[in-house]
Amino acid sequence: MLYCDAMLKQVLEQGREAADAALERLLPPAAQHPTSIHRAMRHSVFAGGKRLRPILCMEAGRMIAAASVGSSSAGPHAGPLARSLPAGIEQVGAALEMLHTYSLIHDDLPALDNDDLRRGRPTCHKAFGEAIAILAGDALQTQAYEVLAQIACPADSRVAIIREIAHATGSIDGMIGGQVVDLEAEHKKPDLATLEYIHRSKTAALITASVVSGGIYAGAMYTGATSADIARLRIYGQSIGLAFQIVDDVLDLTQTSEQLGKTAGKDKAAEKTTYPALFGIEESIRKADALVDQACTELNEYGEAASTLKDIAHYLVERKK
Amino acid sequence: MLYCDAMLKQVLEQGREAADAALERLLPPAAQHPTSIHRAMRHSVFAGGKRLRPILCMEAGRMIAAASVGSSSAGPHAGPLARSLPAGIEQVGAALEMLHTYSLIHDDLPALDNDDLRRGRPTCHKAFGEAIAILAGDALQTQAYEVLAQIACPADSRVAIIREIAHATGSIDGMIGGQVVDLEAEHKKPDLATLEYIHRSKTAALITASVVSGGIYAGAMYTGATSADIARLRIYGQSIGLAFQIVDDVLDLTQTSEQLGKTAGKDKAAEKTTYPALFGIEESIRKADALVDQACTELNEYGEAASTLKDIAHYLVERKK
Repeated sequence: MLYCDAMLKQVLEQGREAADAALERLLPPAAQHPTSIHRAMRHSVFAGGKRLRPILCMEAGRMIAAASVGSSSAGPHAGPLARSLPAGIEQVGAALEMLHTYSLIHDDLPALDNDDLRRGRPTCHKAFGEAIAILAGDALQTQAYEVLAQIACPADSRVAIIREIAHATGSIDGMIGGQVVDLEAEHKKPDLATLEYIHRSKTAALITASVVSGGIYAGAMYTGATSADIARLRIYGQSIGLAFQIVDDVLDLTQTSEQLGKTAGKDKAAEKTTYPALFGIEESIRKADALVDQACTELNEYGEAASTLKDIAHYLVERKK
Repeated sequence: MLYCDAMLKQVLEQGREAADAALERLLPPAAQHPTSIHRAMRHSVFAGGKRLRPILCMEAGRMIAAASVGSSSAGPHAGPLARSLPAGIEQVGAALEMLHTYSLIHDDLPALDNDDLRRGRPTCHKAFGEAIAILAGDALQTQAYEVLAQIACPADSRVAIIREIAHATGSIDGMIGGQVVDLEAEHKKPDLATLEYIHRSKTAALITASVVSGGIYAGAMYTGATSADIARLRIYGQSIGLAFQIVDDVLDLTQTSEQLGKTAGKDKAAEKTTYPALFGIEESIRKADALVDQACTELNEYGEAASTLKDIAHYLVERKK
């Protein structure tokens, strides 16, 4: 490993803190009437998540901002600001995390994955009952769009971001579609086309929307991201999103529930379609590594400004939970 | 009754058709992969709804458009166009209906109201199972925002509409908040403050957002709605929304399941907080009539252009299902 672990650790830590602070500001307080749902929303949002999607959004924004500055060296943002985050981008990140958390709350419900444990804590319906958990998931989705309608970039970029994120979490080839096919693939022989649809839709789509929305936001705040920038971010997101899900499935097989902070071995128990079920663990890891290489190659254009997104891509396949 | 029943019937019928056609275009086809969720979404959306929210949105838009023309008689839209619908407003209506339908699907779930019958047909979870019903509700919410991000008005009005609708369906004083308090009020002595919060939030908020978003849309497409226009539409919406819910609760007591197309007498069985439970049926009807008068007075400013919205207000308290 040539990149600097300590620097990445700092980026992840600062990103997590920025996302948490934005979530704290943008979610209704726990004492807000009716309190049961607001406590439930916060229970699941503040359960120790890595804030991967907000961090990817913010770092994609930072990269595009740096590239915009680089291409107009006389611009107002040259100098030390070149590597800073676009102002207010953490609000986009917070909305992405609300959407991710809503999907976890609903996935954990008895009618779906029926999971009692998430990030080492009782799932939302275990702590607050099924009715409140369903409504807390609904409300997190709603709150995400109320936030996105008010972010700091110009309105035409706000609607572009809303459209991107809504499609990525939708029923056709987004998060909900992936969840439907995943549910319906249980107890069936895995099939490669089905597997790829599930991974692309269930996980990679929102990860892709995270980096793309960060790019649109930064482009709108600075000199404008080109369609080539957005296309590169899209390929980066799709590649790391797929790698992330492959590693998730491998970890489900190789780690304990204690190590993961969630129930391990669930995919096997449910006879779920996974990469390791289809190709074995070693080949799955090779595939994930190849995807990360592809993601990083896509960002070579940005030179040093891409180093953090490249480090994150490597980190995703080397993590242990 | 001084207003013309035949004309109102035609407005409601044409509005329902316009909303249905927009929903047909804007929802994924039933054959779209994964088909189970798209069939489930359509099962609940195309179950014979009155399309009240789309109609209110479109008619509020028509009224503001006519008023805009009236205030600038030399404007490009004078003449026959004065009473036509702003182009594309039915897409806002379709998004509102998707949100309304998502709330019905989730409200009907076993963990919430546990209802088997809706508009005379099996509820979504009865027809497709609980997992798909939860995800179909989620996907209708998502699809609504994907549609709203792409409506024809300028982007700054699009984000104003998204913000308005998201807040009206949210957890603080919107639809979800009302549903939470309604659930928690079961089997408890009704209390007026609680009852008013439930009705204002659960039903009136989305009805208000329907007319307000129609006003914003029409204002953006013509000479601009003033903040006074929006304030008047807001009071109209809040008044008819509350009247609508009072009548709904009265009908639950006085009509059969067959007449309603949904299970009657449920509020009493669940010892729910309702207006008739608190004030009796006659006093509740008087209250609803007074609210409708208040709503209509608010629109006197618009003269003849307000006649349809006034007729709809009266229709809402005189309906039998």
